[in-house]
Amino acid sequence: LEKRNIKIELMYDGTEYHGFQRQKNGITIQECLENAIEKITGEAAVVYGCGRTDAGVHAICYTANFHTSSEISTEKLPLALNSQLNEDIRVISAKDVPEDFHSRYSAVAKTYIYKIVNKPVMDVFLSKYSWFYPQKLDVDKMKAAAKQIVGTHDFAAFMAAGSPVSSTVREVTDLTVSEKDGVIEIEVTANGFLYNMVRIITGTLVYAGCGKILPEDLPEIILSKERTCAGVTAPPQGLSLKKSFYREG
Amino acid sequence: LEKRNIKIELMYDGTEYHGFQRQKNGITIQECLENAIEKITGEAAVVYGCGRTDAGVHAICYTANFHTSSEISTEKLPLALNSQLNEDIRVISAKDVPEDFHSRYSAVAKTYIYKIVNKPVMDVFLSKYSWFYPQKLDVDKMKAAAKQIVGTHDFAAFMAAGSPVSSTVREVTDLTVSEKDGVIEIEVTANGFLYNMVRIITGTLVYAGCGKILPEDLPEIILSKERTCAGVTAPPQGLSLKKSFYREG
Repeated sequence: LEKRNIKIELMYDGTEYHGFQRQKNGITIQECLENAIEKITGEAAVVYGCGRTDAGVHAICYTANFHTSSEISTEKLPLALNSQLNEDIRVISAKDVPEDFHSRYSAVAKTYIYKIVNKPVMDVFLSKYSWFYPQKLDVDKMKAAAKQIVGTHDFAAFMAAGSPVSSTVREVTDLTVSEKDGVIEIEVTANGFLYNMVRIITGTLVYAGCGKILPEDLPEIILSKERTCAGVTAPPQGLSLKKSFYREG
Repeated sequence: LEKRNIKIELMYDGTEYHGFQRQKNGITIQECLENAIEKITGEAAVVYGCGRTDAGVHAICYTANFHTSSEISTEKLPLALNSQLNEDIRVISAKDVPEDFHSRYSAVAKTYIYKIVNKPVMDVFLSKYSWFYPQKLDVDKMKAAAKQIVGTHDFAAFMAAGSPVSSTVREVTDLTVSEKDGVIEIEVTANGFLYNMVRIITGTLVYAGCGKILPEDLPEIILSKERTCAGVTAPPQGLSLKKSFYREG
């Protein structure tokens, strides 16, 4: 039987998980999906995700794919998988895709959102989905700093130490900072992300917002390629993968 | 020492609580607040809330007040109380008010919000804050039905059985239904609410949205004064108290 390649889009609240990628020390999204697929198809499957997400990081629309020789209808797959998954993981859609589609390697861009609650008192409904930063941030300075990050740069300064990659050059095509009722949202799109890159960009924008650095320091920070020159790594729970993009569909 | 009367505004995620009002069978918001006040003032206090909220119901801005002879600064009170409260209850503000102010009896109006996720798949971030209703609802019909409810009426049909009150007449001054990305929000303001009134209004609007009743049936349902003529009681977790209004401050 020829194997089909099925692309799924899912949403998850990462609070209770050790990230997407299967690991020994805790329950992960990948493991839950693989177990659900095995239950409904009777066949072991490997789920390929569009990227690792850290423990506590969420996904609004995460793309994954798996190969199966099961004849289950693609249309019925979301409901069937959801019946086997915890309520904090929901499969939104499923689609047959060409054999060579790979959620991670076929991705041409990804968008992440980072939320900061910048109010004297935490919002109880956002405590698991944001960074509580009570000290007043200057959003205009954060916006000015964000502008300096857009473009193709060597982002070595914005990568967690000890993450081997062949190149640290990435293109950030969009980086916006907005604020509403004391909640700051940072939305960033790039053709790829280094390990912890969004969380370090966020920490650096927060440094700009509280005056620890100036927006015009950004080019020098980037050129330094030194992790210690950028800001702190923002905590995981404020981060959500919004979308992974592909040439087709 | 003369007692001060302090009004506090708070926000809470009601998921883990048996409502606002102190009771024997479970932990309540009132109990948590009274314990926190006793810890920081060294004085037992009764906290008066602006209304009962059921188990699982939330508050975006709930008003309460208590009397104290403690000399603690009103300004420092939110931070002090928050240091003693669970993260899912946050005191937003505190203010000295006249002796006769009572959160419940001085309230001239209250606004509630009810959220319905009307999509084929539940939103994982809203599962504790909404009613998951996957069958497509006709929002225009819900809006038309809502218009019929606005006004001064005997709302006996919209009250849970066995809740003795002297009058079941209330004035609904505002009732709006809006929809965005499959999330329906019902916002209702009245000079007072009967027990379960918002949840029964919501259930009745859902009946209109799925065609079980017609918008033009509403006047007759109201006139019937019969609970069985109105819709189901919507589940508690979709409901949040948005605000309680007072003549002053």
